[in-house]
Amino acid sequence: MRIALAQTNPIVGDVVGNTGRIIDLISQARQAGAALVAFPELSVVGYPPRDLLLKPRFVKANVEAVHRIAESCVGIAALVGFVEPNAEPVGRELRNAAAYCTGGQVQAVRYKSLLPTYDVFDERRYFEPGPEVTLVKHAGTDVGVSICEDLWNDKQVVGRQIYTRDPVGQLAAAGVKVLINMSASPFEQDKHAFRVRLFGDQARRHRAAILFVNQVGGNDELVFDGASTAFDERGSVIAQGRPFEEDLLLVDLETPSANRVEAYPSSVASVHDALALGTRDYVRKCGFKRVLLGLSGGVDSAVTAAIAAAALGPEAVTGVAMPSRYSSDHSRSDAEVLARNLGIDFRTIPIAPIHESFEKYLQPHFAGRPADITEENVQARIRGALLMAMSNKFGWLVLTTGNKSELAVGYCTLYGDMCGGLAVIADVPKMMVYELARHINQRAGREIIPPGTLTKAPSAELRPDQTDQDSLPPYELLDQVLDLYIRQEKGPEEIVAAGFDAQAVQKIVRLVDTSEYKRKQAALGLKVTSRAFGVGRRMPIAARFRY
Amino acid sequence: MRIALAQTNPIVGDVVGNTGRIIDLISQARQAGAALVAFPELSVVGYPPRDLLLKPRFVKANVEAVHRIAESCVGIAALVGFVEPNAEPVGRELRNAAAYCTGGQVQAVRYKSLLPTYDVFDERRYFEPGPEVTLVKHAGTDVGVSICEDLWNDKQVVGRQIYTRDPVGQLAAAGVKVLINMSASPFEQDKHAFRVRLFGDQARRHRAAILFVNQVGGNDELVFDGASTAFDERGSVIAQGRPFEEDLLLVDLETPSANRVEAYPSSVASVHDALALGTRDYVRKCGFKRVLLGLSGGVDSAVTAAIAAAALGPEAVTGVAMPSRYSSDHSRSDAEVLARNLGIDFRTIPIAPIHESFEKYLQPHFAGRPADITEENVQARIRGALLMAMSNKFGWLVLTTGNKSELAVGYCTLYGDMCGGLAVIADVPKMMVYELARHINQRAGREIIPPGTLTKAPSAELRPDQTDQDSLPPYELLDQVLDLYIRQEKGPEEIVAAGFDAQAVQKIVRLVDTSEYKRKQAALGLKVTSRAFGVGRRMPIAARFRY
Repeated sequence: MRIALAQTNPIVGDVVGNTGRIIDLISQARQAGAALVAFPELSVVGYPPRDLLLKPRFVKANVEAVHRIAESCVGIAALVGFVEPNAEPVGRELRNAAAYCTGGQVQAVRYKSLLPTYDVFDERRYFEPGPEVTLVKHAGTDVGVSICEDLWNDKQVVGRQIYTRDPVGQLAAAGVKVLINMSASPFEQDKHAFRVRLFGDQARRHRAAILFVNQVGGNDELVFDGASTAFDERGSVIAQGRPFEEDLLLVDLETPSANRVEAYPSSVASVHDALALGTRDYVRKCGFKRVLLGLSGGVDSAVTAAIAAAALGPEAVTGVAMPSRYSSDHSRSDAEVLARNLGIDFRTIPIAPIHESFEKYLQPHFAGRPADITEENVQARIRGALLMAMSNKFGWLVLTTGNKSELAVGYCTLYGDMCGGLAVIADVPKMMVYELARHINQRAGREIIPPGTLTKAPSAELRPDQTDQDSLPPYELLDQVLDLYIRQEKGPEEIVAAGFDAQAVQKIVRLVDTSEYKRKQAALGLKVTSRAFGVGRRMPIAARFRY
Repeated sequence: MRIALAQTNPIVGDVVGNTGRIIDLISQARQAGAALVAFPELSVVGYPPRDLLLKPRFVKANVEAVHRIAESCVGIAALVGFVEPNAEPVGRELRNAAAYCTGGQVQAVRYKSLLPTYDVFDERRYFEPGPEVTLVKHAGTDVGVSICEDLWNDKQVVGRQIYTRDPVGQLAAAGVKVLINMSASPFEQDKHAFRVRLFGDQARRHRAAILFVNQVGGNDELVFDGASTAFDERGSVIAQGRPFEEDLLLVDLETPSANRVEAYPSSVASVHDALALGTRDYVRKCGFKRVLLGLSGGVDSAVTAAIAAAALGPEAVTGVAMPSRYSSDHSRSDAEVLARNLGIDFRTIPIAPIHESFEKYLQPHFAGRPADITEENVQARIRGALLMAMSNKFGWLVLTTGNKSELAVGYCTLYGDMCGGLAVIADVPKMMVYELARHINQRAGREIIPPGTLTKAPSAELRPDQTDQDSLPPYELLDQVLDLYIRQEKGPEEIVAAGFDAQAVQKIVRLVDTSEYKRKQAALGLKVTSRAFGVGRRMPIAARFRY
């Protein structure tokens, strides 16, 4: 049996466009000799549709689309993810569903059983779990249909069992031969390797082929990496689709040697590619053609610019240097050299005169007060306003350049360097920013990011001779403590017990806790770790829990 | 039997402080002769604790606190809301629980059965529903313990049944005589009247007294209105606590004439009081002492200033007029008169010179382009930067003054007038802002808000002779369409069919849909309607569903 896995890149909510693409791929799959083509979770509406699901006419449009898709299923069967109104009188109004379409009709519908409500997922907000699972008979074979989370509940691999149901175990007991998993599984660094282990383990244990078809593309803060994967009943990978691109992967279950197995990038390369795809899709799906960003000469803006150029082409990127009275010569030249190396448009707007104008009119109100963070923030906000003015005038999207370490401890200015529609590296800790920079140079085979940018001490250059380490612990230490505190949810006592300096830990924890108000108003950031700031981390602001 | 309802105002996460207050109120209730005192839902941690619940040491601290509280329960019993680790090996790790404490110990624990996942609620993110409900025997009486949502599932009153379980029906079948409902029920305009109907109906039908004890106070965007209410078994209100204040309400079930029944404010007054409480608590719980805001002479900033003065005292409020080259004389004088009427500090900082400085340095990059929204936004952003500079220098919180109608259609400048930590009237439609203004003057018995502010055409004054109605339909129309589109989730076709102009409807819908990116970065706004922007409305940004 030849099955096609169609990893599509839907635009969330674009039922018409997504449906057209699905019908097109069904036709391609038929031409390629596939008997069945499977699409990702909620492929008709795009994942995650969020509160669009509360609009009755949206759900109606998606149901009508599934029937149009089914009409095109002649000489082939398709599994298409969609939202179905719950026919039961009790329970939430919708189900996360898969339509098995063949002979020009929807022949069967299957449902997601396990609905995640952790991290970025809110599925119980919309969906009722499906009833008991049953097999679908496709061309004489017992096919099991599962949706994303249904396959993540493996007792042998994951920790605590949060669900009482075991849909895959039930399908296995019913004699499943081919288990399809229709997914929208967001990228996280090193997650694909875990998927391969998790799914391969279940294929082996249940003695069934497992075909995982994953959405691809960026949808707001989530990036889906595609890399749809097929496993034989011994748990071996027999086919793998392209990572970070649309693909129609043909899986021949009988002669697996005919299948494509595309390589998945290395850990740091995968982060780079995820950020590039997330940037490209956010820009494109929001209807922008060009972006701009501030170039400080530092590594954060350099990496952001390089990713933007990789995502959109250098001709679609403008870098703006906005030197202050405290900017060093090397910063200005590093910014300019970077822009030249990338081949992007480069502008310079000095901020000192505007800064003086602010000082003059604020001075009567500040009489007698010493200079402090206020004066630094004014400069950052002038820069933000200049970038936004360019954005407003030309219709270019502003990219924010802050990294995760800064955002964690609030080392950033609200309405200043935090201005922008997309925060490309907001989930990338500072040490990983350096890794990305080295990767970018290595990949290009030349110094795109100037050596000075990589070696000088990080500085905001908002007062004379400032460096980040005047205010913060060294980034090597900071990043480790942040990982323990934020991602691993360790308490300060545990972190100190792990060998970190108590005073530094106290300070970092306090900074993280008191910076929630900044993150509340941060630009949307692309998620690449298992715990990103954004919809997957929901902290109160006016709160008092410390330690 | 005399039962006390202790409507506390917890700080989220402040286990130590909240516990101290609970122990104090247990002692007061005992002195007042109560046999039992009930506290709101999750009273030890404050509602909503959000992702603090993912910190194991936070859960541990809350469990230890319950045992300290129980030790103080001698000569009285208490029902205290807390988070309990789920002892079952399968299911989410926590339960939303109530401890029945007496004789110095936790004698019994009961659980929330119905876990809301709509609007602002995410309870399935953290909690597993409780097992089957059972009664608690208190001093010979069969007492039922329910938690918030458990009492909102009345088939006779609410619409679709989203839960399969019926905990209150089961307690009734088991012979409940007194049903306690421990709640954290957020304020919405006109919701209290609905509660009275919903709870009274169930008291009557189940022939049981119902005692609803509600949290009070502002926690981020949610305001809890207190107004704990007791119903006899005929469904009549026999006691009601103070709205918008902490209170210890004594309920004598045998001689209800001895009970207090505090009045609940009128519809517009309740919105005013909710906003004042929400503002006071956000400021206080974040550790601020003073606020500042821009005063334009318009009704939005006037109402915001009046609410701030009511919340914090006029001595804690600074109004800043920031006239531009387009500001009218009447705007400047209206702002100054308002400040004088309120008795708040008043400053003026002209923005024209700073504006000129921006123009000079942007002009080379804008060569040949006509003036447009860019120049208007620059002015708004200068104002934002000035307010933030004052905030940084003096440690005062900036209040944002935008209303819901503006925020809905994006008639506001990101990083400009949207700057600030708290958006006081972000959930108040423009027409209701006028209602609030009239209410404020009426309540004061004099013209706090100048008549000119109430009668002139709304204008941003960012270009010559501008009014809001150059860009937007009249607010009477706009607010009605927004209510249909946003709160009622009607589609444009339905709205047009209801009698609204098709072109206006199309325009409004398009503006709402394309402004999600602004709301993503908006300040936290106080929720007063059933569908506020904020955590209760989760829309994708890079999406394409229209109509």
